[in-house]
Amino acid sequence: MIPTQQNILNAYSNVKLYVHRTPVLTSSYLDRLSGASLYFKCENFQKMGAFKMRGAVNAIQQLSEAQKQQGVVTHSSGNFGQAVALAAKNLGIKAYVVMPNNAPSVKIEAVKGYGAEVILCEPTLEAREHTSEAIVQKNGATFLHPSNQLEVILGNATAALELIEDQPNLEMVLAPVGGGGLIAGTALSVRYFGKNCQTIGAEPLAVNDAYRSLQSGRIESNEVSSTIADGLKTQLGDVNFPIIQQGVSEIICVEEAEIITAMRLIWERMKIIVEPSCAVPLAAVLKEKEKFQGKQVGIILSGGNVDLSELPF
Amino acid sequence: MIPTQQNILNAYSNVKLYVHRTPVLTSSYLDRLSGASLYFKCENFQKMGAFKMRGAVNAIQQLSEAQKQQGVVTHSSGNFGQAVALAAKNLGIKAYVVMPNNAPSVKIEAVKGYGAEVILCEPTLEAREHTSEAIVQKNGATFLHPSNQLEVILGNATAALELIEDQPNLEMVLAPVGGGGLIAGTALSVRYFGKNCQTIGAEPLAVNDAYRSLQSGRIESNEVSSTIADGLKTQLGDVNFPIIQQGVSEIICVEEAEIITAMRLIWERMKIIVEPSCAVPLAAVLKEKEKFQGKQVGIILSGGNVDLSELPF
Repeated sequence: MIPTQQNILNAYSNVKLYVHRTPVLTSSYLDRLSGASLYFKCENFQKMGAFKMRGAVNAIQQLSEAQKQQGVVTHSSGNFGQAVALAAKNLGIKAYVVMPNNAPSVKIEAVKGYGAEVILCEPTLEAREHTSEAIVQKNGATFLHPSNQLEVILGNATAALELIEDQPNLEMVLAPVGGGGLIAGTALSVRYFGKNCQTIGAEPLAVNDAYRSLQSGRIESNEVSSTIADGLKTQLGDVNFPIIQQGVSEIICVEEAEIITAMRLIWERMKIIVEPSCAVPLAAVLKEKEKFQGKQVGIILSGGNVDLSELPF
Repeated sequence: MIPTQQNILNAYSNVKLYVHRTPVLTSSYLDRLSGASLYFKCENFQKMGAFKMRGAVNAIQQLSEAQKQQGVVTHSSGNFGQAVALAAKNLGIKAYVVMPNNAPSVKIEAVKGYGAEVILCEPTLEAREHTSEAIVQKNGATFLHPSNQLEVILGNATAALELIEDQPNLEMVLAPVGGGGLIAGTALSVRYFGKNCQTIGAEPLAVNDAYRSLQSGRIESNEVSSTIADGLKTQLGDVNFPIIQQGVSEIICVEEAEIITAMRLIWERMKIIVEPSCAVPLAAVLKEKEKFQGKQVGIILSGGNVDLSELPF
């Protein structure tokens, strides 16, 4: 069941009072370097620093009043935990965030700072799922998935919706591919609101489960999870995969060094702070320049939450 | 001779086609932290990455056709050299930039990249002045000073002019104080375009010649030039000092650690890259919070050219 245009418009009316309409920036240097006209949708300026806020707000807004009263739960060591915490706070409901007990204290404090209750567990996926499930059972909270849930995907779609409203003549829109929730939402908005526009994914070669899944027609796994683009380690899901199959023209894979180079270019030339994951689409454009030559190209910059003490340059 | 409102308007019509109208950003976190409403004028997004572009363009635009034919010369190891190079290129004239022979090669390449002729000299002020003077004599080029020249100050004034156009109810505008060219221009625009608005300078305690000059009534010198805010080491000048005396309410001095803390806050919370010099006004606001409580406060973020390999955190 592929969502409709109306589903996205509904999501936009759910989220628009609770998220920033982030700016679209350009760089004459990066245009010269790439040979394309690049339009960067700056979700690094989004509330809590990432597009994840959109999906979290939309998923919570879809709940019934009875569900809202019992709160929401997610497990995350990254941006989605913060997004759920802040979205729940702003919508006046309770949030539980399950985090691994080896998560950096700064991340735990950030989630607590947004008012969520943090529950620590052993640092395994099994423990995280088990702990979350116990909270669902005990407290009646609704579980929210960071990427493989339709309401989250529809919320994510609103970033590309705004980008296309601002730049209606885009011929291509690129987004990074991790769990698949952003690229799926992007593909939906490109399909319904773009004019002869295609969606292209960009993925680290080291964790290119989505690239391989598109080739094989079934969901593939990553054998390792080591990439500088730490937001993109997660696996594709069964909700977003069919949307990606239908709406994404291709996925371009890039090397670690290409990601770091692209990240540094964005920092130095655009003077904005982006996560390594954000740099993957620009790395793809610079790797396959001929494909983008002379085109109007949108790029979703997914977030800006980096540890300044651990930069790759 | 204090410049008039019309002088600034003329400068604005000289520069506006050659500079970006940079955005004004806000941060709800920094508003909560400071207790003020802060409006950041993002000259880090300016062409070549700093407000210096405005002064360079205006100074070149003021030249006669005969002068333009013979080009311009400056000596600089920092942003002004790049600004003169790019402004000259965009206005179709020749630029000579005298640089110390120990300048980082990345800076020399940046100036060359903008099309200027780089002349290396010994790393002393005497050698730089002597070499520049020789180019004036030999080539007939006009010398441009980075901060102590009226046309440069008037060009710089256009940043605060735009800020006040965007936020007409500002009660205070802060800018960093180095050579004095930015704070002088800011004071002029605040005086002519602000409504009950005052100009406040922010200066590193380590090089607070301007603070001491305002106290004593004459231009004081710095005994050391060691500060993380490397754009603010330069001495106040005799052209901008009278403007500062008349238009600047006070100068707040901040410690090095306060500058680094403020810089990190801007990077982490606003997700933008600013030079250490840029962080000095925010450090001043956070140091003397009671002064800014509940006020509408503009801050000029002067530039974003930093060496990512040498961050203070």
